[in-house]
Amino acid sequence: MKALLLIGDGMADRPLKELNGKTPLEVAKKPSLNKIAKNGICGIMDPIAPGIPPGSDTATLSLLGYDALKIYTGRGSLEALGCGMELLPGDVALRCNFATVDENMVVLDRRAGRIENEDAAKLTESLQEVKLKQSSDVKFFLKNTVQHRAVLLIRGSKLSADVSNSDPLKIGKKVLEVKPLSDSLAAKRTAEILNELMLKFHEVLKEHPINKKRVKHGLLPANVLLFRGAGSAPIMKPLSEIYSVNTACVAAMPLIRGTCKAAGMKLVDVNGATGTPQTDFMAKAKATIQALKDNDFVFLHVKATDAASHDGFFKQKIELIEKIDEMLDYILDRIDTDNTYLAVTADHTTSSITKSHEGDPVPVAITGPYVRSDDVEEFSERACAKGGLHRIRGIDLMPILMNLIGKTKRFGA
Amino acid sequence: MKALLLIGDGMADRPLKELNGKTPLEVAKKPSLNKIAKNGICGIMDPIAPGIPPGSDTATLSLLGYDALKIYTGRGSLEALGCGMELLPGDVALRCNFATVDENMVVLDRRAGRIENEDAAKLTESLQEVKLKQSSDVKFFLKNTVQHRAVLLIRGSKLSADVSNSDPLKIGKKVLEVKPLSDSLAAKRTAEILNELMLKFHEVLKEHPINKKRVKHGLLPANVLLFRGAGSAPIMKPLSEIYSVNTACVAAMPLIRGTCKAAGMKLVDVNGATGTPQTDFMAKAKATIQALKDNDFVFLHVKATDAASHDGFFKQKIELIEKIDEMLDYILDRIDTDNTYLAVTADHTTSSITKSHEGDPVPVAITGPYVRSDDVEEFSERACAKGGLHRIRGIDLMPILMNLIGKTKRFGA
Repeated sequence: MKALLLIGDGMADRPLKELNGKTPLEVAKKPSLNKIAKNGICGIMDPIAPGIPPGSDTATLSLLGYDALKIYTGRGSLEALGCGMELLPGDVALRCNFATVDENMVVLDRRAGRIENEDAAKLTESLQEVKLKQSSDVKFFLKNTVQHRAVLLIRGSKLSADVSNSDPLKIGKKVLEVKPLSDSLAAKRTAEILNELMLKFHEVLKEHPINKKRVKHGLLPANVLLFRGAGSAPIMKPLSEIYSVNTACVAAMPLIRGTCKAAGMKLVDVNGATGTPQTDFMAKAKATIQALKDNDFVFLHVKATDAASHDGFFKQKIELIEKIDEMLDYILDRIDTDNTYLAVTADHTTSSITKSHEGDPVPVAITGPYVRSDDVEEFSERACAKGGLHRIRGIDLMPILMNLIGKTKRFGA
Repeated sequence: MKALLLIGDGMADRPLKELNGKTPLEVAKKPSLNKIAKNGICGIMDPIAPGIPPGSDTATLSLLGYDALKIYTGRGSLEALGCGMELLPGDVALRCNFATVDENMVVLDRRAGRIENEDAAKLTESLQEVKLKQSSDVKFFLKNTVQHRAVLLIRGSKLSADVSNSDPLKIGKKVLEVKPLSDSLAAKRTAEILNELMLKFHEVLKEHPINKKRVKHGLLPANVLLFRGAGSAPIMKPLSEIYSVNTACVAAMPLIRGTCKAAGMKLVDVNGATGTPQTDFMAKAKATIQALKDNDFVFLHVKATDAASHDGFFKQKIELIEKIDEMLDYILDRIDTDNTYLAVTADHTTSSITKSHEGDPVPVAITGPYVRSDDVEEFSERACAKGGLHRIRGIDLMPILMNLIGKTKRFGA
C-alpha cells in the first residue's frame, strides 16, 4: 500500500461577493477533485489550530505529522535546506526578499516587481563581494531561488536565531532595524551582523547596473534585501524512522522542499516546476507517478494557487484549481488505485480579499481501497465540512494516512 | 442515575469487498444496537488519537477516562492484576504466550494451536519447579489464564520494566533475546533473568509428557513461553475517588479485568464468561443487570468480536455482533431505562482484512433520559459519524457519561 498527499498551497478561501458568495474551489470545474471527495472520506482540517493562520512552513510540518508548535524555529533554516545549502548546528538562516525602497528606506514593493530569476542571480553574485567589518569569524552565504526570493545563511561562533525581521511585511513602511529577541550576547551579535549586511547590500544594490537598467525599462529596482524568519537547524526524527517508509517530495518552492528535506524525504527535481502559475503541472504529475513507484509516501505540492490569492487574482486562482484538477486526472489514470491512498488538501486558507493566509480550516478528502466513504460529493470548504472525518488537525493527517497503509505502530497490547 | 458502558472489543472494522463494501457492523442484524443509536446521541471516537492503533489495554484505560499516553507502562502489570496476582511496587510483570517453536527456536505458532486451559495449567504447574541460578533474591510467579495466555511476575530488588520482548510477534521468526531498553543496571539484570527463565522453561516444556501427548494427537506442542509487554504497577487514582461512584467490571479477559482493577473497580466473576466466541453472553447479561443494582457505573466487555477479527473470520464477527445485540436486548428489557444511561462502543477498530488493530475511529452511541438525541438510526461506523457527538477521543467518554449521571465536578465557580 502507498499514499500520495496532494497539497494545493492556499487553495482554500473564504466566500467572495464577486463570486456570488462562493469560494474559488466552489466555483471551479474540478471533476477529479470531486471524484476523490465522492469516493472517499472528507472533512475539514485546522493546519495548526482553529483560527491560527499558518505559514506554508509550519503548515507543511504539521501535515507531515510534526508538532510545529514545538519544533519550528523559523522559516530561514527550512528555506536554506530547500535550496540545497548546507545547514550546520549553530548556523542561522534567513529568508530574504529582493525589494524596492525609496530614498528614505520606505518599502515600495516587497518583491521588486516579482523580479526575474536572471536579474536576481546577477545581483546576488555582486553581493558575494561584501565584506563584514573587522576580521569577524562570521561568514555569510547568499543564494537566490525563485524570482525575488533568496536565502541568507550566516555561520560563525555564538550566533542566535532569536532576532527580529528587517522586513516590515507591508509596503509604505520603513525597513526595520534587526533587534535581538533575547538577552543573549549571541542574539545581540547576530542582530548587529544582519544590520551591517543589510546596509552594505543596499549600498551595492542601489548603484547596480542591473537596477539602473530595470528603472530605464520601467521596472522596479531590487535595491534592498529584506530579511525575515531567522531559524536554526530543526531537530526532527525522519519519517523513515517514525513510520518505516520511503518518502519523496515533488515541490518547487525551496521552503517546502526544505521542510520535506528536514523530514528526511528525498527531493525530486522536476524540469519546468517553477512554483509560479506557469509551472509545468504535467511534468509534476509524471514525476509523482514515477516517485510512487519507488516510495511508500509521496508529497506533491503546488504553489501557484497561493501566489494568485496573495495577488487577489481570484479568477486566476479558479483557473489554477482547474489545472490542479487536470493534473490529478492524469495521475488517477496512471496509478494503481487498488493499492494507493490519495489525500487532497490545502496547507492553509489564503483569502483572495485580504490577500493573506487566514486561520479558517481547509477541506480534506482521502480515497483508497478501505476508507469509510461518506456522502460528500464535492471537494470544497463547505461540502467537505459534512464528511466522515469531521474536523481534524493538520498533525493528525499523517497518522491517519500511515494507518491506512499499515505503517503506524500500535500503542499498547 | 446509573451508567452502563458496553464494549465490543475490536467490533469496528473497515469496509470489506467481501461484504460489498460494507463493514460487519453494517451487515449484522442488530435491532437493539440500532435502538440505542436511534434513541440516543451518536458519534465517532478515536480511542487514543486519530490514526493510532490502540491495544485493548491502552484503549480501555482511555475509555475509563485515563490518559494512557502518560500512565501506561506495559500490559504485563494489567494482566497480572486481572488474573488476581498481587502486584507490588517494584514488581515487573509480563504477558506470556504458550507457543510452538521448531528446533531452531523459530516460532511456528504464537498460540500453540490455542491450547486448552487444562493442558496449559499442567504445563504451568511443572514450570513452577524451575530454579533461578545462584542464590538470587528474585522470585517468579507464573499463572496461566485463558487458553495460551499466561502471566509471569518477577519480584526482587532492582528490577525494571524497561526491557524488550522475547515474543517476535510473527510466525517464522526466531524467539528474541530480551534486551534492556535503558542503561540502568536494573534493566540489564531484569533482561538477564528473563532470558534465563525463557531457556529453562523451554528445557522443561520440550520434554513434557503433555506436549508429547499433544504431538501424538496431531496438536501443536506448547514448547516455549514468549514474553512481552513488561510493566510495573500503574499509578492511577481510582474512579471512586475521581467521580464518587461505585463501579463494577463484567469482563472475562485478564487484561481488561486488570485494567479495571487498576481503576479501582470491583471485578464480577461470571461462570461461563470465557473471552472466547463460545462465551456465555446471557450469563454476562445477568451479571450486568445485577451489578447495575449495586453500582453507579458498570463496564461490560465482550472479547469475542476481536478474536474473530484477528482470525479474519468476518462472518463469525457478524454472528458475534448479533449475539451482542441479543445480549443487549435482554439487558434493555430488564434495567430501569428511565434512570440509566447506556453507552455502546468498541475499544478499537480491528480489520478483518489486515487482522490487526487499526487506528480508524470507532462508533459510539449513548442513550438515556436526557441525552440530546440526533437523527442517526443505525449503530455503525459510518452512520454514527453523522451524529451529534461528532468526533471525540476515548478519554472524553467517561467525563461525558459521568456528566450525564451528575457525577462530574464543576471546574470553576
